[in-house]
Amino acid sequence: MTTPWEYRYAQRTQRMASSAIRELLKLTALPDMISFAGGLPAPDVFPVAEFQEACTRVLQTSGAEALQYGATEGYFPLREMIARHTARYGIQITPNNVLLTSGSQQALDLLGKIFINPGDRILVESPTYLGALQAWNAYGAEYVPVPIDDYGMIPEALEEALRVGPKFIYVLPNFQNPSGVTLSLERRYKLVELAEAHGVPIIEDDPYGQLRYEGDHLPSIVVLDDQLHNSHDGQYRGNVIYLSTFSKILAPGIRLAWVIAPPQVIDKLVQAKQGADLHTATFNQIVAYEVARGGFLDQHIRTIRRVYGERRDVMLKALDQHFPSSVLWTHPEGGLFLWGTLPDWMDAQEIFHEAIQRKVAFVPGQSFFPHGEVKNCFRLNFSNATPENIRLGISRLGDLLYEMIETPQKIMA
Amino acid sequence: MTTPWEYRYAQRTQRMASSAIRELLKLTALPDMISFAGGLPAPDVFPVAEFQEACTRVLQTSGAEALQYGATEGYFPLREMIARHTARYGIQITPNNVLLTSGSQQALDLLGKIFINPGDRILVESPTYLGALQAWNAYGAEYVPVPIDDYGMIPEALEEALRVGPKFIYVLPNFQNPSGVTLSLERRYKLVELAEAHGVPIIEDDPYGQLRYEGDHLPSIVVLDDQLHNSHDGQYRGNVIYLSTFSKILAPGIRLAWVIAPPQVIDKLVQAKQGADLHTATFNQIVAYEVARGGFLDQHIRTIRRVYGERRDVMLKALDQHFPSSVLWTHPEGGLFLWGTLPDWMDAQEIFHEAIQRKVAFVPGQSFFPHGEVKNCFRLNFSNATPENIRLGISRLGDLLYEMIETPQKIMA
Repeated sequence: MTTPWEYRYAQRTQRMASSAIRELLKLTALPDMISFAGGLPAPDVFPVAEFQEACTRVLQTSGAEALQYGATEGYFPLREMIARHTARYGIQITPNNVLLTSGSQQALDLLGKIFINPGDRILVESPTYLGALQAWNAYGAEYVPVPIDDYGMIPEALEEALRVGPKFIYVLPNFQNPSGVTLSLERRYKLVELAEAHGVPIIEDDPYGQLRYEGDHLPSIVVLDDQLHNSHDGQYRGNVIYLSTFSKILAPGIRLAWVIAPPQVIDKLVQAKQGADLHTATFNQIVAYEVARGGFLDQHIRTIRRVYGERRDVMLKALDQHFPSSVLWTHPEGGLFLWGTLPDWMDAQEIFHEAIQRKVAFVPGQSFFPHGEVKNCFRLNFSNATPENIRLGISRLGDLLYEMIETPQKIMA
Repeated sequence: MTTPWEYRYAQRTQRMASSAIRELLKLTALPDMISFAGGLPAPDVFPVAEFQEACTRVLQTSGAEALQYGATEGYFPLREMIARHTARYGIQITPNNVLLTSGSQQALDLLGKIFINPGDRILVESPTYLGALQAWNAYGAEYVPVPIDDYGMIPEALEEALRVGPKFIYVLPNFQNPSGVTLSLERRYKLVELAEAHGVPIIEDDPYGQLRYEGDHLPSIVVLDDQLHNSHDGQYRGNVIYLSTFSKILAPGIRLAWVIAPPQVIDKLVQAKQGADLHTATFNQIVAYEVARGGFLDQHIRTIRRVYGERRDVMLKALDQHFPSSVLWTHPEGGLFLWGTLPDWMDAQEIFHEAIQRKVAFVPGQSFFPHGEVKNCFRLNFSNATPENIRLGISRLGDLLYEMIETPQKIMA
């Protein structure tokens, strides 16, 4: 039965097909399933007690403010805290460079709204973050994919892709979602230099930057760019828009993230955000500020690093033990994900359907490619399952892969 | 100093000029200002203690769920509660008819995203809610304004406007923002009938429906429409999309609202919301559910009605006492606002600038007209200021109006 609304959808609605991942993830919520599919933080590390204390304190001392409408830009003390925090990484910014958003997904949507005309080409890593493709499809974006290897975007391919005149470059330099790889320092310099030479700005998406389990912190793209564009007035006015989030370092259920950008871009984003949701929940911003301040955030990030680092190690060891040698995977130095590559002839989506029968889930990699051109890759999350379940799930998956690779006709028939 | 981003804004960005109201409201935050400008609930009625108890209970019993990612559709028990609550008003719906959004502003944005192609005509009351114009300007909407009187949209004008083939009708039937007027029962029937006859669907925006201080509750447009389109399967599949919010009955600082629509429209909105912010904060939804359940919401709405009803009465009485007889105003039966009309030759914006010098603020009405064609109107909020300040503010404003109407040359020179 149709409704009078059916024939009235906008053209852009045709590009907003429900994500394959979302449909698949519904299957992974079944009981007994060991899921490496989501991008979920471990609930064991949520600072529940600190949230409880903060809620009580905020409601007792400033309930009227916390429950009232607030400024579109965000809660000022939190914008100041983010500016100070950013300064530690070597870039001077002011609160005028900071906008609070309802998760990084909203930042991607607002950036699409203010920058993307239908048909605009966006340069992306291939594979790239699915949520960015979802946000920007609605604005009619076309994509120029740049292949990555273990050190991120390949500079020669990047240089070639820049020749088509993309509107901007979208990059996740640290422990990329979905691949887990990190853009090398040399390539970061090269990226900034090439972007400058071609006059193409950069959106740097950095949800996991602080979740590094080995190796040294590498400077953000925005920091390297600041060295070229420093305005000497304490504000950042450069070529990069930087995104990060509280989802992975505090909790995703409060939907709180931030954008760092030149003040003029912040102004446009504020206008767009006013029309999109007026402002991010005042209560969540004040509570997050209360939880994060006074050094708790640094201490908590150390806890997360320890827990996730151990889970990554457990998964890498289990992969070594249980996976056939014809399957390859990345070695992420941080973040939440690693990326597997099956033999060319295999289709990860078919394996997914068999895997969920055996109570283990992952995400087939096809959706992360803007043109859906690669079918033999998959993403594994190592932050959410316990070490015990990681061992069990990887061994189930390994058994399946051995069967499918050695006797494919039996399974695929 | 420009940035490399400056020349890259999308065409739609040109239509997102920062709202006049937002700029004006910055002036109204000055100390000692009595502001009738915002649409702010009274902080005195925020259920702070109930929020505190609910936060503690939610974090103690389901902290891991409340701080984790959640479903795009929203927290299921809250969708169920809204479905039950809606049934009380005479329309059968299921949770599949309900989507939780990050405030009603997000619902307006998502509706724009899924329905409005550039150049589409949207039929609106004139004046209408500014936030809808802001949301839909970004999608290239054009507007067909229908004048209102004390009983809402004038049917003859509505019928004529429907002939241009609008994509949908946008209407705030109860205590409209900005005018405070209520669409009469007779006109509600006429609206549903005309919309049906012309095959034009309706968006019914109802943030204040439960805040009635006199007279009888009138059935919602969606309820009247359901009598025409009843699907007899317990789901609503009709011609109306209905919006309401917790902002005015609990607190706006949690950014929580809902949409009731045919299931197919909910599916499209869910796809759009996934790209826009993944989901509304899990924590806020579970806490709001805990605060609202068990009958507290009904009891709290009675408190709000009492407080706001008294303030409305105080403002109406003060207007009678202090305003010149050449100024007219509406008599709202509920809601947060009333609407004033100055003599034709006056410009409310000029009066605003003089008024803030005298420490009293309101909103000039021009921005509420899609084509900005009317300058002699203004909006007064009566929910936020205390009765004492309402008397003082209206007397200041009355003094100013007497001066300007009787000796305009002195002030306007």
